[in-house]
Amino acid sequence: MSRKVEHIGVLGGGLVGALNSIYLRKRGYRVSLFEKRPDIRKAGTDSGRSINLALSRRGIKAMQDIGAFESVKDILLPMEGRMMHSLEGELTFQPYGKEGQFINSVSRGRLNEILINKAEEAGVEIHFEHTCHHVDLNKTEVSFTSPKENVTYQFDLVIGSDGAFSQVRQEMVKIPRYNYQQYYIPHGYKELTIPPTEAGDFAIAPNALHIWPRGKYMLIALPNVDRSFTCTLFFPFDGDPSFESLKTPKDVKQFFQKTFPDSLEHIRNIEEEYFKNPTSALVTIKCFPWVKNNFVLIGDAAHAIVPFYGQGMNAGFEDCHVLNQLLDKHNDNWDATLTEYQLLRKDDADAIADLALDNFVEMRDLVADEKFLIQKKIEARLHDQFPKQWIPLYTMVTFSDLRYSEALEAGKKQQAIMDEVMKRKDILKNWESLNLQEIVDQL
Amino acid sequence: MSRKVEHIGVLGGGLVGALNSIYLRKRGYRVSLFEKRPDIRKAGTDSGRSINLALSRRGIKAMQDIGAFESVKDILLPMEGRMMHSLEGELTFQPYGKEGQFINSVSRGRLNEILINKAEEAGVEIHFEHTCHHVDLNKTEVSFTSPKENVTYQFDLVIGSDGAFSQVRQEMVKIPRYNYQQYYIPHGYKELTIPPTEAGDFAIAPNALHIWPRGKYMLIALPNVDRSFTCTLFFPFDGDPSFESLKTPKDVKQFFQKTFPDSLEHIRNIEEEYFKNPTSALVTIKCFPWVKNNFVLIGDAAHAIVPFYGQGMNAGFEDCHVLNQLLDKHNDNWDATLTEYQLLRKDDADAIADLALDNFVEMRDLVADEKFLIQKKIEARLHDQFPKQWIPLYTMVTFSDLRYSEALEAGKKQQAIMDEVMKRKDILKNWESLNLQEIVDQL
Repeated sequence: MSRKVEHIGVLGGGLVGALNSIYLRKRGYRVSLFEKRPDIRKAGTDSGRSINLALSRRGIKAMQDIGAFESVKDILLPMEGRMMHSLEGELTFQPYGKEGQFINSVSRGRLNEILINKAEEAGVEIHFEHTCHHVDLNKTEVSFTSPKENVTYQFDLVIGSDGAFSQVRQEMVKIPRYNYQQYYIPHGYKELTIPPTEAGDFAIAPNALHIWPRGKYMLIALPNVDRSFTCTLFFPFDGDPSFESLKTPKDVKQFFQKTFPDSLEHIRNIEEEYFKNPTSALVTIKCFPWVKNNFVLIGDAAHAIVPFYGQGMNAGFEDCHVLNQLLDKHNDNWDATLTEYQLLRKDDADAIADLALDNFVEMRDLVADEKFLIQKKIEARLHDQFPKQWIPLYTMVTFSDLRYSEALEAGKKQQAIMDEVMKRKDILKNWESLNLQEIVDQL
Repeated sequence: MSRKVEHIGVLGGGLVGALNSIYLRKRGYRVSLFEKRPDIRKAGTDSGRSINLALSRRGIKAMQDIGAFESVKDILLPMEGRMMHSLEGELTFQPYGKEGQFINSVSRGRLNEILINKAEEAGVEIHFEHTCHHVDLNKTEVSFTSPKENVTYQFDLVIGSDGAFSQVRQEMVKIPRYNYQQYYIPHGYKELTIPPTEAGDFAIAPNALHIWPRGKYMLIALPNVDRSFTCTLFFPFDGDPSFESLKTPKDVKQFFQKTFPDSLEHIRNIEEEYFKNPTSALVTIKCFPWVKNNFVLIGDAAHAIVPFYGQGMNAGFEDCHVLNQLLDKHNDNWDATLTEYQLLRKDDADAIADLALDNFVEMRDLVADEKFLIQKKIEARLHDQFPKQWIPLYTMVTFSDLRYSEALEAGKKQQAIMDEVMKRKDILKNWESLNLQEIVDQL
């Protein structure tokens, strides 16, 4: 006998919670969405979380499903590749894919506003300023405090889209034999701003994701619609240099002058902004199961990942897309849907979590390496000549909807082949005359 | 400025807690040991945890350090290899190492009693029936309930040897950016008994660890001093067959008749014992840091592992040995000691955790495979001819004190070489004429 589902509670009105509410409402369910913060449309964007994100294929597909992509187009800024800034201020551009392939810098707050509007239009009942303080996994009940009252609701199903520190998951962890992992990398991040020039223009090229790769750490910058850039310093918490070792405004200024000299022309007020803005941690969460009784985890609540592949939001949106597809497949039989959902998505979530951790090394270190960039050029040629046989890993992850787990496996195989290719004599000189057929044949 | 340490609180009077108390007492510290259970010497062995363990090189070394090994010898039963029982009741013996190399079946309870006696003799202050209910990481305070009173102690240093569900670690997990993982395999275990024969003898060969490898699950048996064997069924919790699928005494009997027929001659009362004995879960715990303020994790509290390499106790005892060595090296400077202790042991604990998970596949599945056994024979010959260059992984882990992390790395390298060797044409026929020098040269 399957669950009877009419009324669904959605915990968390962030990007994934809002999007998923729309999917569910469109299927005809009664949907109640609870968000602890005030209405973002009145309160302005929230602070403390990263301001802009990279929307790509998987996220776009979900936005299209619910008919929201057209409304978002105006706030997207295409980034066609990485722009590396060397210590000497030299620029190197590495395209993300073929011509016409790009990822989209987008404001988390603006996107959230649009999704909340769409959810409201679709008939989702939205409760802001409702802080969940108790989850009862057996009774399918959730208790909230709000400025007006303490209230307990019962649902037929609850979706926990309540983020990396999910309260639904905190209840699930107490289940016997629950598998759980929280892994913090030794780096944190801090956001800084490059404002528009005095003439009101972008201070650096707007169609790229800028990286100052410095081996153990890096600075990046993504463009905003207001022609500013949001920079993020990914930097160790401890050691030298680190957030801990830069103690005074003078330390910060000197460190940036030495390490990111060409950024200082553009980041004004570094001494002030550095100490005003928070330093945040970077966590990977893995857990299983994602479904217990009538509770389901989705998005960061099920699989928080580090941001280095630009896939956190895209993976969460793809969860919603997959859940919706499975409801189609199983004619809204939730038992069959949820069983398949968690088995299917767990492998993919684990894969993108690992890929995202690996990509930090690529971004902060490898992109400054000539050999690495040549390898990427060879792979781009392979893809040009054998577009169906050799698809670079970044392309599979970002511009396709191949399962993340399959992309990871294919990427490993390609990397093993390329490791051998890159060992060949004088490869840095001869790479343009490689026999590409012979490489592809190794797949 | 280093910590001033005079009075050390040790939480948990299990094997590692008792052993470590002796080490510390011998260095001259005042040591107070707290154990929630009654005095094991009066109450008899505890139930619910595995009854016998395999003591090997690393554990023995620590026992020798504190002068306890002689007292233990009488309760050790040497196991020289694995005895595999096929479905047809055929026996295959695979030695663990060279002649004279063996592991030792030992009763957890008896060993614990001996260590508690030694601790008492050494002057450790032992408090039984003290259940820790609060840990204050900042004040170095621990609060207990006991049958007589509720009491709070302050120490200079607290060692958390309080096992896989450590309360000290539960406090540490709350530290910002704490890394933590609990991973349950899908299998649980249940203990069963092969009593001595009516003539009072061992029912099966006493000098081996018996395995009934059945692919996805297995039964094992270890000898006891009273000439019984303790069997352990490692079996999935769910699916078919599983603990869940065997619902009645009849189900159990039929399953054993079909799957472990030759065990049924010896396990009497299977229908009764199966339902009387508990089913327990198998967890791997990884966490970091192990040191916070004046609290230190050791043994299972820091790194609970699955039992399939027979290294849980040995790894915990080696923690104590390493800690003691570092105190020697740093002249009891605890700051330097603890910094080095956790960095050194974390890598080794991670390595043995992974090795133990891998070894389950070896025990339940590979040991029934002819090709696998031939590979092990080839490796034994390699070790014979090149004793310093090729040391089989099992030997490095069990009969040497090479760091677990180094054993893991060396084992991977050997496995890659052996993977190629085992692909050779007709290897199962030709293996005795292999050019061993050529294999060793690949290292």
